[in-house]
Amino acid sequence: MAAETVNSSADEEIFDPAFALHRGGKMAVRATVPVNDRDDLSLAYTPGVAKVCSAIADQPELVHDYTWKSQVVAVVTDGSAVLGLGDIGPEASLPVMEGKAILFKQFGGVDAVPIALDCRDVDEIVETVARMAPSFGGVNLEDISAPRCFEIESRLQERLDIPVFHDDQHGTAVVTLAALRNASQLTGRTLGQLRAVISGAGAAGVAIAKILVEAGIGDVAVCDRKGIVSAEREDLTDVKRNLAGFTNKAGLTGSLETAIEGADVFIGVSGGTVPESAVATMAEDALIFAMANPDPEIVPEVAHKYAAVVATGRSDYPNQINNVLAFPGIFAGALQVRASRITEGMKLAAAEALAAVVADELGADCVIPSPFDERVAPAVTAAVAAAARAEGVARR
Amino acid sequence: MAAETVNSSADEEIFDPAFALHRGGKMAVRATVPVNDRDDLSLAYTPGVAKVCSAIADQPELVHDYTWKSQVVAVVTDGSAVLGLGDIGPEASLPVMEGKAILFKQFGGVDAVPIALDCRDVDEIVETVARMAPSFGGVNLEDISAPRCFEIESRLQERLDIPVFHDDQHGTAVVTLAALRNASQLTGRTLGQLRAVISGAGAAGVAIAKILVEAGIGDVAVCDRKGIVSAEREDLTDVKRNLAGFTNKAGLTGSLETAIEGADVFIGVSGGTVPESAVATMAEDALIFAMANPDPEIVPEVAHKYAAVVATGRSDYPNQINNVLAFPGIFAGALQVRASRITEGMKLAAAEALAAVVADELGADCVIPSPFDERVAPAVTAAVAAAARAEGVARR
Repeated sequence: MAAETVNSSADEEIFDPAFALHRGGKMAVRATVPVNDRDDLSLAYTPGVAKVCSAIADQPELVHDYTWKSQVVAVVTDGSAVLGLGDIGPEASLPVMEGKAILFKQFGGVDAVPIALDCRDVDEIVETVARMAPSFGGVNLEDISAPRCFEIESRLQERLDIPVFHDDQHGTAVVTLAALRNASQLTGRTLGQLRAVISGAGAAGVAIAKILVEAGIGDVAVCDRKGIVSAEREDLTDVKRNLAGFTNKAGLTGSLETAIEGADVFIGVSGGTVPESAVATMAEDALIFAMANPDPEIVPEVAHKYAAVVATGRSDYPNQINNVLAFPGIFAGALQVRASRITEGMKLAAAEALAAVVADELGADCVIPSPFDERVAPAVTAAVAAAARAEGVARR
Repeated sequence: MAAETVNSSADEEIFDPAFALHRGGKMAVRATVPVNDRDDLSLAYTPGVAKVCSAIADQPELVHDYTWKSQVVAVVTDGSAVLGLGDIGPEASLPVMEGKAILFKQFGGVDAVPIALDCRDVDEIVETVARMAPSFGGVNLEDISAPRCFEIESRLQERLDIPVFHDDQHGTAVVTLAALRNASQLTGRTLGQLRAVISGAGAAGVAIAKILVEAGIGDVAVCDRKGIVSAEREDLTDVKRNLAGFTNKAGLTGSLETAIEGADVFIGVSGGTVPESAVATMAEDALIFAMANPDPEIVPEVAHKYAAVVATGRSDYPNQINNVLAFPGIFAGALQVRASRITEGMKLAAAEALAAVVADELGADCVIPSPFDERVAPAVTAAVAAAARAEGVARR
């Protein structure tokens, strides 16, 4: 039977190069020291290794100097909210986690290992990750469904002395803020002058709302499927109730269309569709970030009729809001100074550094660098490391 | 404070090259596919990766074809019984686990990732490893203290459909059996004609006793600190009671010295010292495997006075009983055919293949190949894969 399934997939490969590329996986481990003769072995393994172990047992901080701990991140998922595919389970999520791992390496020089977990309970995930934490310098949570992702992240960060970062939240938030900074500057406004609407109150929507408020946005309203998240609603989860407390200063109630009317900024992280009639009611020089993949909430061609700047999540349009612009540098910076966590200040610093990369090329089609812009990772790394020191979470 | 500890270790480095070698760790991750431009990214990551994820969600077996799962092993420890150092905890054990990981790669072409766990309870370790199992093609347990290691291994293997292998037990047992096969042949005897004594009833001692019995040893008595493990003793743990049931057919009782008198084989995995007066009482053409590291139970110079063949765990004497001769090929063979477990038959096949490598060079100083003999891993791999098929645990 196994042979048959392999054959059927082999047929599929003919039609899709992604299968051929994925055969055998996308990553490997390599030794960084020689193991070619007895002398090598006696240094890298017994008996030489014993002295190094003893030294770490005596001075625990030395684990960062003499192992790969401080350069390796666990990419942890339970496979419950993978890309646009939803709940496909741990095994089926592995190609994404491997992809993430090689992006960590390629763009940030950070080693990363996929850890797909066969459990769903918040307590179990927290316990499992906490137990394996001695092996890693950081934890990148990935594609874990809301609202569990919020509690898992905060409980793990509380418990561990290494950075815990849910990229679907904070990576997206950092890149969005960077693009918005540049877009507002390009159109002659400060963030404080903007009123934004976010469509989607999941991991990304909540995190974007938070970072926009921290960055000084004029106002931001978040909409879920039932409309604007406001304190008056009685159907809110804890996370959304909290969200209602620090967003929507205007006290808007009602539908997404109500929120959009007169808004300066639309940020889509929902996967829904916004009718053109609603888009047409936005303020002049609107900034439209329709980031759903592969189908943006507002088709770029429509968005351009009403907006001064249009961004999407797609690589075939300009201004791609791509997390790979953030997470490699953020972790590289945090690991470089052995930060115990990734603070809000470090995320804001990452967004500023990212925005600054294209300061000289700023234009409606260039509010954010390309993922392949080689200036990005070093700039983000340096900014995050400096912010970690400034915020007192660096350990060297 | 961190700076001081680093400085003090820097001083140490001057005196010991092991520290210089270990700086920054001994391993890294690398991408095996290109990630250099948008096209690469759209195949290895979004959107291309989604089709691969969907295919695995539909046909779970495809995870072996399209991810690195089937070529990566978790090297799991709790740091409770590390080398000769004992209980040094998870962080301090990492240099050994990294060493193990690079030996997996160098000698077997198998990727491996160190997972040092911050928990000790058997249930917790079993749960934690089972939860992360979707990410791995096999689990190599390492340096977990007896008797917990026995229960952890058997419960994990019962629960998982990937190989679970406690190298301190079975790796040592396989290499010991291989050497003993050759040593007995060299001295004109079958295994059935030999009576063996094992000093040490921990992980290695128990596993060696089992494999010797399976291989048809004449008799074997195991000794712990209190003497010969026999059914009459009332202080035995469950594991030792079980051991008493299938070893010591002669019904010996008393001290190690009693057991050694007239024995053909001495196998030391205890770290104790055997007095020369006792060694002198062994049978003619004795085979002495004094494997404690760095101090053999019987100094080779003394052993040679009485024995036809002497083996140790040290690289500076001939006949080094080194696990690296077994575990890379055993896992490579098991992973190659996607075995669901590593059976006794696969271990016996590994020992036979390993012994056969030096069949033509057989001599008192060559009963086992050098760890750097390039014939070893391919021979063990092929034998283990064939045995897995023969035993019905192969999945391709």
